[in-house]
Amino acid sequence: MNTSFFGELLLTISERGRALLERGRGGRVSAAARSENLIELCEELLSGRGEASGVALARDILTRYAALTIGPRIAFFEALANRFGPDPARMKKAIAAWEQKPCDETAAEVHAASEPRRQELFRRLNLAPGGTAALVRMREQLMDALDHRADLAAVDDDFVHLFTSWFNRGFLVLRHIDWSTPAIVLEKIIRYEAVHAIRDWEDLRRRIDPPDRRCYAFFHPALVDDPVIFVEVALARDIPAAIAPILATGREIVEADKVRTAVFYSISNCQRGLTGVSFGNFLIKQVVEEINREMPKLSTFVTLSPVVSFADWLKRERSSDSSAAISAGDKELFGLLDDPNWWRDADKAAQLQEPLMRSAAFYFLRARSPRGLPVDAVARFHLGNGARLERINWLGDTSERAMAQAHGLMVNYQYDLGDIEKNHEAYAEARTVVASAGVQRLLRPSLELVPSV
Amino acid sequence: MNTSFFGELLLTISERGRALLERGRGGRVSAAARSENLIELCEELLSGRGEASGVALARDILTRYAALTIGPRIAFFEALANRFGPDPARMKKAIAAWEQKPCDETAAEVHAASEPRRQELFRRLNLAPGGTAALVRMREQLMDALDHRADLAAVDDDFVHLFTSWFNRGFLVLRHIDWSTPAIVLEKIIRYEAVHAIRDWEDLRRRIDPPDRRCYAFFHPALVDDPVIFVEVALARDIPAAIAPILATGREIVEADKVRTAVFYSISNCQRGLTGVSFGNFLIKQVVEEINREMPKLSTFVTLSPVVSFADWLKRERSSDSSAAISAGDKELFGLLDDPNWWRDADKAAQLQEPLMRSAAFYFLRARSPRGLPVDAVARFHLGNGARLERINWLGDTSERAMAQAHGLMVNYQYDLGDIEKNHEAYAEARTVVASAGVQRLLRPSLELVPSV
Amino acid sequence: MNTSFFGELLLTISERGRALLERGRGGRVSAAARSENLIELCEELLSGRGEASGVALARDILTRYAALTIGPRIAFFEALANRFGPDPARMKKAIAAWEQKPCDETAAEVHAASEPRRQELFRRLNLAPGGTAALVRMREQLMDALDHRADLAAVDDDFVHLFTSWFNRGFLVLRHIDWSTPAIVLEKIIRYEAVHAIRDWEDLRRRIDPPDRRCYAFFHPALVDDPVIFVEVALARDIPAAIAPILATGREIVEADKVRTAVFYSISNCQRGLTGVSFGNFLIKQVVEEINREMPKLSTFVTLSPVVSFADWLKRERSSDSSAAISAGDKELFGLLDDPNWWRDADKAAQLQEPLMRSAAFYFLRARSPRGLPVDAVARFHLGNGARLERINWLGDTSERAMAQAHGLMVNYQYDLGDIEKNHEAYAEARTVVASAGVQRLLRPSLELVPSV
Amino acid sequence: MNTSFFGELLLTISERGRALLERGRGGRVSAAARSENLIELCEELLSGRGEASGVALARDILTRYAALTIGPRIAFFEALANRFGPDPARMKKAIAAWEQKPCDETAAEVHAASEPRRQELFRRLNLAPGGTAALVRMREQLMDALDHRADLAAVDDDFVHLFTSWFNRGFLVLRHIDWSTPAIVLEKIIRYEAVHAIRDWEDLRRRIDPPDRRCYAFFHPALVDDPVIFVEVALARDIPAAIAPILATGREIVEADKVRTAVFYSISNCQRGLTGVSFGNFLIKQVVEEINREMPKLSTFVTLSPVVSFADWLKRERSSDSSAAISAGDKELFGLLDDPNWWRDADKAAQLQEPLMRSAAFYFLRARSPRGLPVDAVARFHLGNGARLERINWLGDTSERAMAQAHGLMVNYQYDLGDIEKNHEAYAEARTVVASAGVQRLLRPSLELVPSV
Repeated sequence: MNTSFFGELLLTISERGRALLERGRGGRVSAAARSENLIELCEELLSGRGEASGVALARDILTRYAALTIGPRIAFFEALANRFGPDPARMKKAIAAWEQKPCDETAAEVHAASEPRRQELFRRLNLAPGGTAALVRMREQLMDALDHRADLAAVDDDFVHLFTSWFNRGFLVLRHIDWSTPAIVLEKIIRYEAVHAIRDWEDLRRRIDPPDRRCYAFFHPALVDDPVIFVEVALARDIPAAIAPILATGREIVEADKVRTAVFYSISNCQRGLTGVSFGNFLIKQVVEEINREMPKLSTFVTLSPVVSFADWLKRERSSDSSAAISAGDKELFGLLDDPNWWRDADKAAQLQEPLMRSAAFYFLRARSPRGLPVDAVARFHLGNGARLERINWLGDTSERAMAQAHGLMVNYQYDLGDIEKNHEAYAEARTVVASAGVQRLLRPSLELVPSV
Repeated sequence: MNTSFFGELLLTISERGRALLERGRGGRVSAAARSENLIELCEELLSGRGEASGVALARDILTRYAALTIGPRIAFFEALANRFGPDPARMKKAIAAWEQKPCDETAAEVHAASEPRRQELFRRLNLAPGGTAALVRMREQLMDALDHRADLAAVDDDFVHLFTSWFNRGFLVLRHIDWSTPAIVLEKIIRYEAVHAIRDWEDLRRRIDPPDRRCYAFFHPALVDDPVIFVEVALARDIPAAIAPILATGREIVEADKVRTAVFYSISNCQRGLTGVSFGNFLIKQVVEEINREMPKLSTFVTLSPVVSFADWLKRERSSDSSAAISAGDKELFGLLDDPNWWRDADKAAQLQEPLMRSAAFYFLRARSPRGLPVDAVARFHLGNGARLERINWLGDTSERAMAQAHGLMVNYQYDLGDIEKNHEAYAEARTVVASAGVQRLLRPSLELVPSV
Repeated sequence: MNTSFFGELLLTISERGRALLERGRGGRVSAAARSENLIELCEELLSGRGEASGVALARDILTRYAALTIGPRIAFFEALANRFGPDPARMKKAIAAWEQKPCDETAAEVHAASEPRRQELFRRLNLAPGGTAALVRMREQLMDALDHRADLAAVDDDFVHLFTSWFNRGFLVLRHIDWSTPAIVLEKIIRYEAVHAIRDWEDLRRRIDPPDRRCYAFFHPALVDDPVIFVEVALARDIPAAIAPILATGREIVEADKVRTAVFYSISNCQRGLTGVSFGNFLIKQVVEEINREMPKLSTFVTLSPVVSFADWLKRERSSDSSAAISAGDKELFGLLDDPNWWRDADKAAQLQEPLMRSAAFYFLRARSPRGLPVDAVARFHLGNGARLERINWLGDTSERAMAQAHGLMVNYQYDLGDIEKNHEAYAEARTVVASAGVQRLLRPSLELVPSV
Repeated sequence: MNTSFFGELLLTISERGRALLERGRGGRVSAAARSENLIELCEELLSGRGEASGVALARDILTRYAALTIGPRIAFFEALANRFGPDPARMKKAIAAWEQKPCDETAAEVHAASEPRRQELFRRLNLAPGGTAALVRMREQLMDALDHRADLAAVDDDFVHLFTSWFNRGFLVLRHIDWSTPAIVLEKIIRYEAVHAIRDWEDLRRRIDPPDRRCYAFFHPALVDDPVIFVEVALARDIPAAIAPILATGREIVEADKVRTAVFYSISNCQRGLTGVSFGNFLIKQVVEEINREMPKLSTFVTLSPVVSFADWLKRERSSDSSAAISAGDKELFGLLDDPNWWRDADKAAQLQEPLMRSAAFYFLRARSPRGLPVDAVARFHLGNGARLERINWLGDTSERAMAQAHGLMVNYQYDLGDIEKNHEAYAEARTVVASAGVQRLLRPSLELVPSV
């Protein structure tokens, strides 16, 4: 079964390449020499003229790369950073030519000369069977190394640049995920769910099989059965205030003619190696379109979203001497939060509700990052897409994680047909956070005039 | 059916954009103003910050472009060439920074600054639904204009650059085309066949339905039901010498256990707008793999190919005073070719056979283009892929077109497992045309020492 | 490819059977002996105990049957009629047992004994690969013979009995036929269309590809890519009065939001061998359901149907001395019909319109077959399904065939939700033809009291 | 979504029927009256003339039946048995007519009159959407009742008769089950596996995903995603002697070029309601064909099968005073078997091996049921299909169930191309158990002459 003409062909060529390369060396290649070896093969791939040998060589490089242990792998990344950047000599020559005669042609050569050579390297590696998936994994491993090694950032930029082009929205295919979907895809949905973990196949079934549930994913032809991003949707009567009833085991199904609201309660990116390439906006809009086609009368599209860094922010404010967000009285009261079970005590919860909701309103509406953006990453995503902050929900998620992250708060972002464009522009131009009157009211009048952080 | 949320959303935004744009103008936009209009929208798209409005704007631009008549279209191309090249001011600044401190970061800015702005424009247009297909059509129309306007070549280069990345081999999906294939695809096979025209659905059926015929096509997700390239294969006993028996209506089916040879008798690129992006090499290799998996005993893979510019070349040689290829005697004899029906006359055919075959051998083995390459484009393709010129076939195709183009000759290129890599390298490095002994022998000894053209 | 274990197995067994059977005979089997031969094999199949050899034997019998020429084929049918009926001896014994002790068990034996043996024979033949399709073809050929041979009717009854069970509505699968349907299915739609012939692939495309056209077919798993029945539907504003505008080449597409009416303008049974097994009622109802799901606002479901035997009936009435349907004056006037081009002459057409429409109303509402049913077969079908005769259309179809068959008339049957059951019962119980007031009015008062034929 | 035209139509009609039926009764229908009610509806369905109302009525009956509690359900079965048998008056009349003039026509009426009326009833119920599945469930419930009520056997016979026709081999579709199969099907494979239980999704995956595993199922169009029967196959080097290595978690995958044997290690019928309709023979043969097409070099097809009633049989022999199968010495030795852990004690196992294997050989080769058939049901199945008893495996399955059922034995049945037909006939005609020399040798010479049970 494996002795195909093509398989043998590739093998023949790879073996030959390997023979050439290892020629002249005595005994086994030392572990240290492996990444060096790989670098030589990469240079050969870049210098190669034809596609015929290129594919085999690319395949060989990716196979060898996959076998590297962590040390040689870092060495390989270093070489990508140091040896496969742009060629300064070629740049100088090209710049000189352009300066002498500035035109399209000379500028094109400046452009080509200043392109890091690793971009062409990645493009050629991408020709190997399974090349795209292998490069996505390679970048995942680069990201692991990046924490300690800022000098590798340029390599990462090149990955993002290429992936942005390759994982173009036009090349993504939307597929409805349900209980008729092949198991090979479903097991990945279980594995990749990042917001509200799926415990097992029964839990999965409760999310995709009932008539008032939907799940959609984007797929890319180079990754075949491996989704790129997916969203889980609950069809409901009203805008939900908490996640538990949505995920509950024995819950009642909402009949089709009662459905008025589509709730996006979980969006998960599947490929860590594609971090920085954005799909979510397109996914949401296309799913809105799908659902709308199926249920023309459904009119409300909202999310039920986590508040990812509220607790961290609040902690900082509590320890700050000059917080514009919270008063001295609040600070003292918030001491109650240090007991992780505060919310089970009705008295404590009652005391905390008003100041915590008020602080959350401040967190969304006033607090800003050093770059002037809202502090909350999820908020930035939905506001940037043109949604409105519709509601902050008290004890919307009492899971351990959500209590630690957001003191139990959840929010709804609403996608409203008539306002998306206006909201988007308000946010894009002035970083204005469009919010409902209800959310606005949570801010006390006294705080209205305080300048933002 | 068309009043979906998303559809309305896009409409709303587009209408708004249009309103903005047409604001302040009295009455209908003049025909002359249309391309200018479009240019403004393109500038707006490039300056836009978000994806939300970008998609709507891109859609609007492509819709307006599609409605342009030829004049405004050329004006639009000129604007792409003149106004959407690299920004010289930005380039200068970037170059200065790099010269002061040459590093990855400053080089990256040189690279970015020297990129023609239209590349980013095309990338953003590509986000519209159907954007890729629209851009492929746009380039088709650009190619029509290119004949007269060399100043548009830079725009064309940018298309090729982007398409090469987007139509990456890893994003193409191979599909077997047979009589169970949807009609929407089959009608395109009929339309796109470029080598041996398919007359009607019955003719198509004879090529894809019988058990000794195969057809495979590459598809790209952005073009959905529209193939990118396809190949037609005949399974046969022996290497065929003529096309007519392969396409014949009442021919005998070759039984599976008699098949020893797979004959690639037609390869057609489907998208004129993708000219310059090469798929054929990958298609052939992957089809070889498919067939090999299905029929492990099949051992010979050959083409039956046209000789696309032999008649033109011979005409030039005949009129040249110092042809190294043909003697004075041949020249006189070749006068017979001026009667288009020479081949129906057995005497004439007998006289012509030896000198014509000898000239053809010269055409393939010795003649070279000004750039040092073989004259025949099909030969360049297969030799570059590592095939060998196996045989020249006398009167292999007596259709009017083939008689005019090749005086009826056809050739077989053979893909031989053990030699592909070697052949490819010989051709890639020294432009060596690897040919069988049989083809070599057609050259008379006396000509062996004559220098090539 | 054909040397599979199973294939060889079957071959081995068949060969063995053949050897056994042809043993003892000298030379080639005479043509006359062939059907006899087959009969022996059938007896062997019926006597066989196991499935293992049964399948091989059944295959062998069907292969031999397929090779019979017309003479031996009729002989085979005769044998089916004469030798494979019920076994009288077994019947007598069973009846005696039942008469002695009437109970479920003895009755079951009477039932088994009185079953024609060919039913079990057909059931066993059906186990061969492709058996069902082969039996459907066999019955087709039996029907050809039936015209002259009433003694074969019992065989035909057994086919209908079995097919009715096998082609049970629950085993049929509805599939939407459009331009994405495999060509192998589409070519059959072209071939089987029986009402308004499809000229070629372009004509087909006009009927299934535009957004205001639908086509649906029932498939059975034993016939794979071969449809059993299909219907063509036009989505329209109003109830159409003529077929030409529906089939016209350059016609305007009806936009989705303008559609109010679904018009069933062609229903074709595909398998002549399944005559007598009814699918149409189920197909119409399921298609109504499909369309209704897709377009909930669409409210009118009508047919545009031919009037299949109006001209024949009218001819009989014209030549009858005592026609209750037409008066002497009409008879004379109807002489104009003898000129096949009468309808191109505005005067003649004007003279004929009122009496012809009136006669048609009589034909539908009053005329009855000897068995008391409406004369028109299409009317019987739709009225039996619960439809109402809505309108008779003057010059609805001026094709040669329709002019000859119906003097150009077409009719609409309407399927009206609230009335289907009532209409069906009125027809089922009292043969009442439910018709609109408009059709009723066409009858002149003077004719109201005349008794029906 | 549920307010379709068709749905409403059916509802309307059903409601109407219900109204008619319940008319004249005061208040709610008593529980006891429900089955009576149903019987009336069944009579109405049988008397009905048309399909239009029939479908609605059938749907109504099945809905009501599904809501019956156990008491009324038994009452309904009794009514089926007593009131829906053949009509004696009609039978008498038909018999009289046939006796007067015996011919095809009169015999046909005898046949029709002696058919139990419930057969036509079931055929009409089958027209309701989901009718087939509902009838299969109905028979399941009838089977539960049958244990105590032999008087219902005639109803059961009618179900088997109809199901045999409806679940004809030609209407079954074979599908390869693997990790790309929809979850909705896979969950049923987990649920229906009857031989070696599938613990969870991971266990399932180990059986269908690895390259040396196959699973195939038959589907019927009326049951959609619900398989009818499936088989699990292991591709192996040699004939396996035990089940544990096949199901082991960390086992080594057999490479494709090492595979010589296909092992059918589990066949499960999925629908209890289809008991008595045989699919296994066809499934095995078609799977052999599939595997053979894929791997032409694979030559050995065997099962690894349980020995379902060996322990029961041995127990009877041990307690019999005149066992021909086992000697007095054996009897004493077999006392060791009463300790369920005997096999964990190497000494005991060593003592038991020879006599137990010998007894097993007797069980297969000599022991016979009162009807003269082999005692083992699985053996009857495979021998009837033409397989050979190839090997008895000592401690082939040490699961609790297999130890209790078969004292740990498993057997291989081999399907051998050249012998299937011969084996089948030997078994069909003389009940000869074809076994390998190895199995034969297990019988001691001294026993050879003892007459069988």
